[in-house]
Amino acid sequence: MRILVVNVNTTASMTAGIGAQAARVAAPGTEIVPLTPRFGAESVEGNLESYLAAVGVMDRVLSYDQPYDAVIQAGYGEHGREGLQELLDVPVVDITEAAASTAMYLGHRYSVVTTLDRTVPLIEDRLLLAGLDRRCASVRSTGLGVLELESDPERAVEAIVAQAEAAVHEDRAEVICLGCGGMAELETAVRERTGVPVVDGVAAAVTVAESLVRLGLSTSKVRTYAPPRPKRIDGWPLA
Amino acid sequence: MRILVVNVNTTASMTAGIGAQAARVAAPGTEIVPLTPRFGAESVEGNLESYLAAVGVMDRVLSYDQPYDAVIQAGYGEHGREGLQELLDVPVVDITEAAASTAMYLGHRYSVVTTLDRTVPLIEDRLLLAGLDRRCASVRSTGLGVLELESDPERAVEAIVAQAEAAVHEDRAEVICLGCGGMAELETAVRERTGVPVVDGVAAAVTVAESLVRLGLSTSKVRTYAPPRPKRIDGWPLA
Amino acid sequence: MRILVVNVNTTASMTAGIGAQAARVAAPGTEIVPLTPRFGAESVEGNLESYLAAVGVMDRVLSYDQPYDAVIQAGYGEHGREGLQELLDVPVVDITEAAASTAMYLGHRYSVVTTLDRTVPLIEDRLLLAGLDRRCASVRSTGLGVLELESDPERAVEAIVAQAEAAVHEDRAEVICLGCGGMAELETAVRERTGVPVVDGVAAAVTVAESLVRLGLSTSKVRTYAPPRPKRIDGWPLA
Amino acid sequence: MRILVVNVNTTASMTAGIGAQAARVAAPGTEIVPLTPRFGAESVEGNLESYLAAVGVMDRVLSYDQPYDAVIQAGYGEHGREGLQELLDVPVVDITEAAASTAMYLGHRYSVVTTLDRTVPLIEDRLLLAGLDRRCASVRSTGLGVLELESDPERAVEAIVAQAEAAVHEDRAEVICLGCGGMAELETAVRERTGVPVVDGVAAAVTVAESLVRLGLSTSKVRTYAPPRPKRIDGWPLA
Amino acid sequence: MRILVVNVNTTASMTAGIGAQAARVAAPGTEIVPLTPRFGAESVEGNLESYLAAVGVMDRVLSYDQPYDAVIQAGYGEHGREGLQELLDVPVVDITEAAASTAMYLGHRYSVVTTLDRTVPLIEDRLLLAGLDRRCASVRSTGLGVLELESDPERAVEAIVAQAEAAVHEDRAEVICLGCGGMAELETAVRERTGVPVVDGVAAAVTVAESLVRLGLSTSKVRTYAPPRPKRIDGWPLA
Amino acid sequence: MRILVVNVNTTASMTAGIGAQAARVAAPGTEIVPLTPRFGAESVEGNLESYLAAVGVMDRVLSYDQPYDAVIQAGYGEHGREGLQELLDVPVVDITEAAASTAMYLGHRYSVVTTLDRTVPLIEDRLLLAGLDRRCASVRSTGLGVLELESDPERAVEAIVAQAEAAVHEDRAEVICLGCGGMAELETAVRERTGVPVVDGVAAAVTVAESLVRLGLSTSKVRTYAPPRPKRIDGWPLA
Repeated sequence: MRILVVNVNTTASMTAGIGAQAARVAAPGTEIVPLTPRFGAESVEGNLESYLAAVGVMDRVLSYDQPYDAVIQAGYGEHGREGLQELLDVPVVDITEAAASTAMYLGHRYSVVTTLDRTVPLIEDRLLLAGLDRRCASVRSTGLGVLELESDPERAVEAIVAQAEAAVHEDRAEVICLGCGGMAELETAVRERTGVPVVDGVAAAVTVAESLVRLGLSTSKVRTYAPPRPKRIDGWPLA
Repeated sequence: MRILVVNVNTTASMTAGIGAQAARVAAPGTEIVPLTPRFGAESVEGNLESYLAAVGVMDRVLSYDQPYDAVIQAGYGEHGREGLQELLDVPVVDITEAAASTAMYLGHRYSVVTTLDRTVPLIEDRLLLAGLDRRCASVRSTGLGVLELESDPERAVEAIVAQAEAAVHEDRAEVICLGCGGMAELETAVRERTGVPVVDGVAAAVTVAESLVRLGLSTSKVRTYAPPRPKRIDGWPLA
Repeated sequence: MRILVVNVNTTASMTAGIGAQAARVAAPGTEIVPLTPRFGAESVEGNLESYLAAVGVMDRVLSYDQPYDAVIQAGYGEHGREGLQELLDVPVVDITEAAASTAMYLGHRYSVVTTLDRTVPLIEDRLLLAGLDRRCASVRSTGLGVLELESDPERAVEAIVAQAEAAVHEDRAEVICLGCGGMAELETAVRERTGVPVVDGVAAAVTVAESLVRLGLSTSKVRTYAPPRPKRIDGWPLA
Repeated sequence: MRILVVNVNTTASMTAGIGAQAARVAAPGTEIVPLTPRFGAESVEGNLESYLAAVGVMDRVLSYDQPYDAVIQAGYGEHGREGLQELLDVPVVDITEAAASTAMYLGHRYSVVTTLDRTVPLIEDRLLLAGLDRRCASVRSTGLGVLELESDPERAVEAIVAQAEAAVHEDRAEVICLGCGGMAELETAVRERTGVPVVDGVAAAVTVAESLVRLGLSTSKVRTYAPPRPKRIDGWPLA
Repeated sequence: MRILVVNVNTTASMTAGIGAQAARVAAPGTEIVPLTPRFGAESVEGNLESYLAAVGVMDRVLSYDQPYDAVIQAGYGEHGREGLQELLDVPVVDITEAAASTAMYLGHRYSVVTTLDRTVPLIEDRLLLAGLDRRCASVRSTGLGVLELESDPERAVEAIVAQAEAAVHEDRAEVICLGCGGMAELETAVRERTGVPVVDGVAAAVTVAESLVRLGLSTSKVRTYAPPRPKRIDGWPLA
Repeated sequence: MRILVVNVNTTASMTAGIGAQAARVAAPGTEIVPLTPRFGAESVEGNLESYLAAVGVMDRVLSYDQPYDAVIQAGYGEHGREGLQELLDVPVVDITEAAASTAMYLGHRYSVVTTLDRTVPLIEDRLLLAGLDRRCASVRSTGLGVLELESDPERAVEAIVAQAEAAVHEDRAEVICLGCGGMAELETAVRERTGVPVVDGVAAAVTVAESLVRLGLSTSKVRTYAPPRPKRIDGWPLA
């Protein structure tokens, strides 16, 4: 089984990290193919960048010319999953949703700890659309940018642990989701420090994608995600 | 006052129709500038096309080099408004939201009548995100594509009236929103035939945009719609 | 165009202030007619007074004998708008709803800052009924009575700014609505102090009313707001 | 124990019917005092009339000069209960809420069958405000006016049974609430015909009021229903 | 009228306390029969124990061989009420729901003060299922176990008052429900100390059960609570 | 990896069918251990039976004396999952939730097709508690009992297909969940006939359980699902 794991930003080292995290959890026989969009922001931290990423991820997947069995969009709270579902016959999994839905098996309520304060509403909106919001206790931010996670992992762990503990004690969360594709490597440290289950979206998404493939299930094509109608589209694919 | 009214698709005749509808309702002294994206689909009827439109509209607005006071995104149920709000200091109005929020002044519940069945969930999702869903009685589709509205207006009126009447009698709507930028010219006909208020999103959005400008109000920049952080963005603007 | 702006309380100086605020924002050619009910409380700060105001406002409008194009009910969180909609053919706009729906164009969430703590639930209830509650971050009170706003505007600004800042930082609001007809004159001061958009309901309502008139739209008469059936009503109109 | 049961309309024969229904279910030792407002509509079937009733009921209760232990507002879906709660120290019970909350002990979902279609949204709004809406399967109308119930009880029973059966089979209700004070006398007939529990609001409200009195409980005065502040109120009490 | 009041745990002294509280509020002519399950936990403070209690209560009621008119399940936030409703023709009242629905007559929002933090989600879940959650301001815990309430009532009062005051001032509750069958005897003390209405679920449930009996109403049998189908059930009744 | 798959009823042939379905989808190296409760109903079709099943499943798991890695509760819409989560350190997966959360990856809305009409509210309640209800378009019943599925699979397929098609066309579902553990063997037939993805809860739950084990995740123990406190529990374990 081959799974494409598409980073939403154009920072290759982050793609590598995400790919490594995905490979770590993948079942024997699953090949992980990490991909970086051909255009877009070096880090996605807002709506403009997220909309660009939606198109950049679709463009990157369409230009991949080998067969594959599932696609993971490895961005937290980003736009775009619905477009991939229209374009593809294979299952598409967004890490925001995979993390939340995994967390809901583990506790009564979960919280998300993410990067900048400005990305909190984007994550809240995606959880609302996904219908996974009722058991979300809170989305909290560390104040660290996406690229700072990479450059100073120790500080990142401290900041995440502080917010995770506030989530557990003040917001009554029982599970923590790491709200950024780039937080994957910090999972163990945060879990040890907080004592509650910690869900990394990339890892969760790999198991969801594998599960859907094994179950022989893929996106329904009867209405929302029917293939695009044949029509003139100028400048697409973009790259 | 100058208001940019940006079509979401690349069909110039539709841009002209939208521009004419906007100009019809504009106050004296308001200049309407209709714009067509430089890339994207000839009609937007699904998620891929809608995400492309989000980026295409942002690209078109950024490349407009004259001053302006407000921007209207003239697509029903489309992605993108949040990105414009980040990028711009002037107010941004989406016609889906302008229609709904106008309708809510006129009756206890409203329905939207749109084009294809596949676009219904996109509109429902945008109303949910906008927090304008509780008083939405239904989103109904005529089964006609966006471009068919233009080519056969008489048939379009019949189909819209049929759905509007079902909305009033079965779904208990009291107001009808025309759920497509290209339906603007049919407004009077539908109103006469159904006997309930009919809201065209483009017209509503023009008055909302003018109102915000006159009130001296624009997008809050404290969190969700703060300007993008300075960073490397490859291939942007796209065109 | 002539718009009646009806105060909910019987304090004439407050009617004058509301009228002045409405006139300031009105378009050229719009005549603002401020009206004071012929009975009711000098300030409306609770349910008894609000129900009296509902009837007092209807009574006052019915006894106005000139033609007019729209009616604004200038009370925050008060009862009565639905009765006016039944009685009148012209559009009716409540400032609570106009403020909220205007705020929703400007940020992800908004808060209302109002007078006494006891009026908070009334405002929450009206927003719930109006279907404008989902994006309301909080309704906060300053502890100042309606008439204290007038008598000590400096203290009022301080109290409002304090609550507005708490709303932005603790409740994650991005826009502030001034939750009292009598707060209109403080709008600029609060805006300057907080750095976020501040919406005054009276001003917002004027632009909404003008917009509806220009769009040729008024209350739907098919069900909820159909004209009262002919019947015996003792003691009405009351005054 | 003495309970005031206040009709919302000015039709004395209806007050008598409501009083008889209340007396039928009252415990030994409970005295029922039926009251008719001194002004207002002969039947309440819309917002204008309902707001008048809110004030008319308060006025009537205030002018009652004997001691009493509780007040029942005997109108379905009407305004006003909150004002009584502010004014009085004794418990106040609205029949709309008493019926719904009683029905919720009896089945998974309940429906309300009411008079005219135009009153459906008023009842829905009151249930929403009361927080009793989630288990409401539907509010259905018979199309009969309030006074027609009295004049043609046989036809009324047929119409109510038809809607009740539709509620059970189509809307999945398991309990029916009779949505009009004047339907009380039809309760047994409807129950026998439909085979599901049928709740009359007046009867339910009497037991609720008696229960609150026996429990020594009354309206909380800490915030929403604190007594009105001392102030000038022109023309009140009205009659 | 005879009402069975079934404790959910197997501590006989607690059954006696509950019975005494029920008897105190019962109408003349109402006989209260307190019952203790024949198996289960000495105190119910979690899901395992609550599921056991659900079965233990059904078992105890089925083995009671005298006629009775209603059953009260005297556990806060526990499972089981639905099973009793299927099995019995008489009304079944859960104290969690009786307390909440009584509180809703008394203030705009209510809070529950319960024992251990771990039982908070159980109560929240039961209120959600009952459709009584919208006006619940919070469920707060004292940190005291069920049996500690009995052994140290003075400390219990202090702890409950502290949480009740936090509920009123921070969560904006206006009424307090005592969230444990064993808190009944503390009701007066808490009421005096907090100044807001305090609802004990056992007392409230007695009046609800009496009311339903007097109204001639019992559980609807058309769908959810239809009698169990005839079938083989191994090991039942259990004891 | 060893996964216990516990039937909720005592019909051994059904346990065998569930076990076979689980084994079919299990990964290489996963051992499926199907278990039948030692007491309870031969089929679970209501609340009494479901509560008995909750206790029967806990009893059966506790008396299993080999090591295992996860537990699946194979009943649709049944009580009990929360108790297992308290008792066990390994992940617990309910098939109702596994089916719904799997379906949500595949389409905008899903429907459940179940057995008897009386079980519909139980399933709705479990989805509500699980926070998986927003994207549920409907829960529909075939009118066939649990044991009839086994005895007449052809008729069962027809009945399920009829409801599934109604769900897709009338309720706007895009995915169908088979709402009964015993429907597993009909999955392929229903999928072929309807053309939309069909999710069997047992199969879905196996992949979820395997995923949680592989991710090293299990139930959070900080609050709701903390181990039961040490205390006297009479008659437990029951068998």
